[in-house]
Amino acid sequence: MSSKMLPVIQPVPVPSGSAAYEAAREAILGEFAAAVPDQLHLPPSTVQKPPRNVTRIPGECGLLSALDLEITEKHDGYALAKAIASGRFTAVAVATAFAKRAIIAHQLTACLTEWFMDEAIAQAEALDAHLASTGKTVGPLHGVPVSIKAHIPIAGHWSNVGYLSTVKKDRSDCQMVAILRKAGAVFYCKTNQPQAIMHLESTSLYGRVLNPHNINLSAGGSSGGEAALIALRGSVLGVGTDIGGSIRGPAAFCGIYGFKPTSYVLPMKDFLPGGAAAELNILCSTGPMCTSLRDMDLFMSLMASAKPYLEDPRVIPLPWTGLASAPLQNSPPLKVGFMMHDGAIIPQPPVTRALEWARSRLEQTPGFQVQSFEPYQVAQAVKNIRLAYWPDGGRDSRQRLAEAGEPVLPLTEWILADASRGPPLDSFGVLQQRLDRDEFRCNFSQHWESQDVDLVICPSFVGPACAHETAWYWNYTAFWNYVDYPGVVVPTPVTALAKGAEDYASSDPLSEECKHVRRLWREGDFEGAPIDLQVVARRYHDSDLLGGLAALQAALELH
Amino acid sequence: MSSKMLPVIQPVPVPSGSAAYEAAREAILGEFAAAVPDQLHLPPSTVQKPPRNVTRIPGECGLLSALDLEITEKHDGYALAKAIASGRFTAVAVATAFAKRAIIAHQLTACLTEWFMDEAIAQAEALDAHLASTGKTVGPLHGVPVSIKAHIPIAGHWSNVGYLSTVKKDRSDCQMVAILRKAGAVFYCKTNQPQAIMHLESTSLYGRVLNPHNINLSAGGSSGGEAALIALRGSVLGVGTDIGGSIRGPAAFCGIYGFKPTSYVLPMKDFLPGGAAAELNILCSTGPMCTSLRDMDLFMSLMASAKPYLEDPRVIPLPWTGLASAPLQNSPPLKVGFMMHDGAIIPQPPVTRALEWARSRLEQTPGFQVQSFEPYQVAQAVKNIRLAYWPDGGRDSRQRLAEAGEPVLPLTEWILADASRGPPLDSFGVLQQRLDRDEFRCNFSQHWESQDVDLVICPSFVGPACAHETAWYWNYTAFWNYVDYPGVVVPTPVTALAKGAEDYASSDPLSEECKHVRRLWREGDFEGAPIDLQVVARRYHDSDLLGGLAALQAALELH
Repeated sequence: MSSKMLPVIQPVPVPSGSAAYEAAREAILGEFAAAVPDQLHLPPSTVQKPPRNVTRIPGECGLLSALDLEITEKHDGYALAKAIASGRFTAVAVATAFAKRAIIAHQLTACLTEWFMDEAIAQAEALDAHLASTGKTVGPLHGVPVSIKAHIPIAGHWSNVGYLSTVKKDRSDCQMVAILRKAGAVFYCKTNQPQAIMHLESTSLYGRVLNPHNINLSAGGSSGGEAALIALRGSVLGVGTDIGGSIRGPAAFCGIYGFKPTSYVLPMKDFLPGGAAAELNILCSTGPMCTSLRDMDLFMSLMASAKPYLEDPRVIPLPWTGLASAPLQNSPPLKVGFMMHDGAIIPQPPVTRALEWARSRLEQTPGFQVQSFEPYQVAQAVKNIRLAYWPDGGRDSRQRLAEAGEPVLPLTEWILADASRGPPLDSFGVLQQRLDRDEFRCNFSQHWESQDVDLVICPSFVGPACAHETAWYWNYTAFWNYVDYPGVVVPTPVTALAKGAEDYASSDPLSEECKHVRRLWREGDFEGAPIDLQVVARRYHDSDLLGGLAALQAALELH
Repeated sequence: MSSKMLPVIQPVPVPSGSAAYEAAREAILGEFAAAVPDQLHLPPSTVQKPPRNVTRIPGECGLLSALDLEITEKHDGYALAKAIASGRFTAVAVATAFAKRAIIAHQLTACLTEWFMDEAIAQAEALDAHLASTGKTVGPLHGVPVSIKAHIPIAGHWSNVGYLSTVKKDRSDCQMVAILRKAGAVFYCKTNQPQAIMHLESTSLYGRVLNPHNINLSAGGSSGGEAALIALRGSVLGVGTDIGGSIRGPAAFCGIYGFKPTSYVLPMKDFLPGGAAAELNILCSTGPMCTSLRDMDLFMSLMASAKPYLEDPRVIPLPWTGLASAPLQNSPPLKVGFMMHDGAIIPQPPVTRALEWARSRLEQTPGFQVQSFEPYQVAQAVKNIRLAYWPDGGRDSRQRLAEAGEPVLPLTEWILADASRGPPLDSFGVLQQRLDRDEFRCNFSQHWESQDVDLVICPSFVGPACAHETAWYWNYTAFWNYVDYPGVVVPTPVTALAKGAEDYASSDPLSEECKHVRRLWREGDFEGAPIDLQVVARRYHDSDLLGGLAALQAALELH
């Protein structure tokens, strides 16, 4: 790598492509590095000999002032907006602190694809001037820095849909970014995502995103850059997307909050230029990744009040009450179903421990009716969704990669595998997938009613954050995409213990995949990896889901 | 036709198929006829030498008692429910009256595919017994007869999706019928629809549905049986479906009320067994056809309160306030845009006269801001939707017809024509249609906002009801399916005058199609055909649409 590159910790190298591809990649990374002033480089020793857990480095590296640390460590977006509105912090101070911390986070985890501190400060100066001259904020996010996943267009910045050939500079903000900008958000970086945006990890031409709690583990994907950045508090509010777990997986791997709404609850106009054949039957969702429930709610309520359906009529104008909602049922108790495993893969021990902790907490708290939730044909749903992702058998993706000399990454091969075995579908093939999906959704809905629950609490993944290149099993997130139910992942106090300190209670694996996951557990070392749980509500009941989380907040120690 | 057939007025014969097909058809019609007692047959002279306008025959034929006439002519569904609940009518009397009137209507217009008076009376007896013993109704439709379009399953009755090969007896009610039954609805007939359920007329193996106001004109389609039946008051509340105008077209042709909601506002589970490839990009809608706004509202509110999304999560749980809604804007005036023509085809003179009547009424009424609404690329939308209906180029439909020896009807050839010229689409072809559709929808949404209206009032069709086999131009309804906006058609006091009594104001046609529509006008005789106007609101703003209609009710003389 040329000396003009910004050194970034990368314990496991990213496979190389053709010479032309590598030259193009080097040019892109060179442009990135050129924007980063020397005084924001970490000491070479930190990058060359990093500790396993890098979460304390931003605070200890000396590059951030006391004010920077106070701003970035002691506030969520809601608190920042309040502090700026009240004059306690300037928007410039806040933008500066987060931009500095973000570029530190990038050197530790490869979480960014672009970084633009100068523009952020200019935007913040304008906001400060507006507040000084009018006494008013421009909106509920006045001065709050917001990080944006790479494929989501911001005017004047680079985007790509997971292939080198799609890297382009966008001329205008997409609808969601425009809404955030109008609400006062400050943009300062874009975040890393994997090849094809279709791994539950985040390895791309921009590098491999590391889990800040343990750099030998993945940060998850496809919104892994967001998750690592937020876990290092280089951002407190970011935007991800999720068609199989891409918000919830990385948020859970990194111990933050993430929300995948029902499809078209939030605006996604221009998120995937050229479209995605997967969306013929599996709609992608977008949503916030953050550090508190109230930031999630703030994000959702400001989106709803912007009436995004007037510009994009795909967006459904469901009313938003969120955290302020009445409980799901008129009278308590709130019925919470625990799905301890999905019938196909028993999660690794710390996940079960976190579920048991939550279950016991709720059992001890008045107002909840705690029960078990039976899993419903998860293996079938996962099989169906894998085929639905690639109606052409992945031929178009392979061609894009081949044309650019881009290496087909192992997890790309893996997610393409099932569909690649069949012929490309014609319209009746696509229709059959639709009919199967809708029948499954109706059947699952009736299953949910038969279980008589308001919310389901379940794992976010088969384990804690996994080792690099092993995020094979999407079961716990992709199922909810297949049925299109909204899901939030929330941190717990549970983290993975030292290797060997805990093991499975039962000795019988449920499937070959389950056996494999057990082997990964015994071979791996997950120490320190955080555990998030997933909370799910009925389709389109996104607002009720947040209402339910408000009820769970104290018992589950949610922020 | 065998003597075992029920004689039905049929001025223009339906094309014949193979001998085997005709034999199967005869068996079906024979079974229909066998259920009809002789004393409910109209005099042969009426069927052999019918007047052009048959609307007075049910009242004058002597087959209906004074009570039958009072029940069927002086009540909408809302009033019937009230009269039954208060004990003024028994459910049996109401079921008897409507069943009798329905079979008269069928002999005049071929509006039914099945008729089951005995079952209806048995159902009504049970409802009467329930009310007598408990003092309570079973629901808001207690004892109200509801007619159902042929393809919609009712337990124990025949359905078909527009092909002989799909005729089958259903074992259970579909979700919507189950909701209606639970609310107290009484079922007594199923109504005719065209081949492939894809004409704006209704000619099928069950016969050609006639317009009761002028039997030389079509009743419209594909829910033409419903429209003719309701116009003859053989029903006051029916269920239709609409993927290009199939509720609104026939309702307008026959001068009744019809509502095509946004897709998945109402439950359609099991409506199209085997699915429809058209729905990959154009979702079908279902909705009420009736004689008053309040029946429309009653239907919608009882559906919403049944929480159909719990059984079918495709249904969107939008709150329903309907006629009781606040006006669309917090403060008046309500902004109503008139689209006098669509930029492609100027409607025939009585339609323009009805629009001018409505416009002038609203201009004279305080509370409305009346303005013009510019059409938006209607010809392009219609071209796109015609292709989207048949992603396989219609090959599957042709094969089904050929296999059964069923004649390909002229309007089937016509709707297949555009798609037949191209190759069958693969998944990327279907995706491209999706992308084009969504771009169009976003652009149209922005056009709507630029026009700054709450509602649009426009034609329901290029003219009044058309002559048989001439419903070629779907522009005024299919456009709203392409953008998936909700639309209601409502009667006006305007009817077509005698031949030659009125002509176009302008002499310049807008297109070849426009020229053709003018020729049809000059060659045709539409005397007495009613004119409905269409009122449209933003996508998913179905409840607001009814709220807007409440505001329009007095000025437009709506029931």
